[in-house]
Amino acid sequence: MSKTSVKQTYASAGVDITLAAQAKKRIARLAKKTTRPEVLSGIGPFGALFEFKGYRKPVLVSSVDSVGTKTRIATALGKYDTVGIDIVNHCINDIFTCGAEPLFFLDYIGIRMAVPERVEALVTGLTQACRDAGCVLIGGETAQLPGIYHKDDYDLVGFVIGVVAKDKIITGKDITIGDMVIGLPSNGLHTNGYSLARKVLGETRAKLNVRSRELGTTIGEALLRPHLSYYRQLQPLLPSIKGLAHITGGGIVGNVPRSLPEGLAVQLDSKQWAVPPIFTLIQKKGKIDLREMYQTFNMGIGMVVICAPEKVGRIVKAVSGAKVVGEVVKQKGRARVIIDNRGYRKDKVA
Amino acid sequence: MSKTSVKQTYASAGVDITLAAQAKKRIARLAKKTTRPEVLSGIGPFGALFEFKGYRKPVLVSSVDSVGTKTRIATALGKYDTVGIDIVNHCINDIFTCGAEPLFFLDYIGIRMAVPERVEALVTGLTQACRDAGCVLIGGETAQLPGIYHKDDYDLVGFVIGVVAKDKIITGKDITIGDMVIGLPSNGLHTNGYSLARKVLGETRAKLNVRSRELGTTIGEALLRPHLSYYRQLQPLLPSIKGLAHITGGGIVGNVPRSLPEGLAVQLDSKQWAVPPIFTLIQKKGKIDLREMYQTFNMGIGMVVICAPEKVGRIVKAVSGAKVVGEVVKQKGRARVIIDNRGYRKDKVA
Repeated sequence: MSKTSVKQTYASAGVDITLAAQAKKRIARLAKKTTRPEVLSGIGPFGALFEFKGYRKPVLVSSVDSVGTKTRIATALGKYDTVGIDIVNHCINDIFTCGAEPLFFLDYIGIRMAVPERVEALVTGLTQACRDAGCVLIGGETAQLPGIYHKDDYDLVGFVIGVVAKDKIITGKDITIGDMVIGLPSNGLHTNGYSLARKVLGETRAKLNVRSRELGTTIGEALLRPHLSYYRQLQPLLPSIKGLAHITGGGIVGNVPRSLPEGLAVQLDSKQWAVPPIFTLIQKKGKIDLREMYQTFNMGIGMVVICAPEKVGRIVKAVSGAKVVGEVVKQKGRARVIIDNRGYRKDKVA
Repeated sequence: MSKTSVKQTYASAGVDITLAAQAKKRIARLAKKTTRPEVLSGIGPFGALFEFKGYRKPVLVSSVDSVGTKTRIATALGKYDTVGIDIVNHCINDIFTCGAEPLFFLDYIGIRMAVPERVEALVTGLTQACRDAGCVLIGGETAQLPGIYHKDDYDLVGFVIGVVAKDKIITGKDITIGDMVIGLPSNGLHTNGYSLARKVLGETRAKLNVRSRELGTTIGEALLRPHLSYYRQLQPLLPSIKGLAHITGGGIVGNVPRSLPEGLAVQLDSKQWAVPPIFTLIQKKGKIDLREMYQTFNMGIGMVVICAPEKVGRIVKAVSGAKVVGEVVKQKGRARVIIDNRGYRKDKVA
């Protein structure tokens, strides 16, 4: 029988809809654990329904992001149940910078083949972080796209919707000279800079399994640590907070200016916070300029809080590891972030 | 200088943040054209803000999907400005099946390198379809992920939020035996079945540029035709509609049952609608079973509307190409879709 006489099916083209259906069942079972009374229907129909009531002057706040190439570390280590935590916490931190409470989350998994166990592990991470934040995993899509995704690679994308009262939006507009800058500790790279980290440290299972004395863990363990959520700890403190910056792609340099009014800058003293050893290791092994480090990685600060000096005590006491790392100053020149008397310009960053 | 003494940068790891910043500027300019008065801030901050007011008994309806491997056809042809239309219309049709009006949309582009012209073309499609539906492109993310995406491949994911009054949700619960099934014409594959179509028809530029007498166009032109939106045409007819099914992955067989109450099925007569020649070509060239065709492709019907017999005239008159294609019957056995007296089971589909 010649090749052209073979009957084609969707499965023979690499799309196994039976696998997708199996994965879907597992997802539905997990997602149900995150439900809220507002959910009118769960995963399954064409759209997910969330009854929206009881909010005063509501503003919907939304954000989208992906875990990026951190998925490749997870794949190399065969550990799929933490990157879901990463993307949920990343998205929740993002909308929380406006003061928003997360309501619901949708995920997208782009993958070559939806191996049910793997998809289930990914969704386990999603549901864990959603439950921690009281956010419902209301919908999602697992797309099997042979031709786009190769081997065990996949992309994990998250969308979050939250709500904030119009008169409670954190805009940063009240920030003034002399306000204090508080840094909240990250536990590693969170979800940014993995392309560079992978290039420097490697991404084979063997390299990731190397135990490092500086780290006290394997390199893989340090790289895979899930993105922290600051929502639960900071939410009760919102009335004391003037500005929030989630330190993601672009680092402190790229993100703090997003929360500052024009004409202001922050002056930081790096001795005030601890840089986790994973960053020192990357910097050393990759011979990376400090400037590049600050523009790529969070360098140990996952969220920046800006507040009046008299609020500092309350915030530092309530949030574990929070430390005053600097203050708000008048902007001189083009630098809006000054670290150890060295100026950094946001426009040099993404 | 030995390789290990080369200083590493984020750019040397394949992530060019200057490119990303350029792409971002172009996106912001385009997205602004879709704005609505409710938008409190556009693309740029950590979260996108949409003031939510004036809705009675609001239920938020959300959906997420990707264009799938249709992007590979677009890439092969070097035509990037239509797949954005695909994903927006796909998402809007999905939430419209509940009767929802689209409010805002967020996109995610996963790509190796954010070539500004290409990203701009992708977003041009997004904004065109968003404007057509009165939906704002409120946010998005372009993630440069070398290591996940190779060469010119990318994934384009969309996320839509709409609103419907709780007492106006289309649930399909009023559908009864004897109701009529109206088919709305698709203009091709819309956004599903591309892995199979690519396998059968090929995906090189040369193969896609072959002019086909049956099609009256090139194969590439037929494959790239953008997903139709049924929102504008159907929205004024909502009071006459009992059920809606968006015909996406799984075809008529997989999607119509999602809108039917238990115990009901639809009986369709394929002579009542025209199957676009692209499907016939795929079927013939791939020697694909008719059953597989119906479970994979929309086969010429992009949306199914179910209504009482006395409403048919109004709907068929108002929507171009709409045709009665069958009726609602009592379910006998496990098949919930019967086409030309042949039963199809949804549980055999995704």
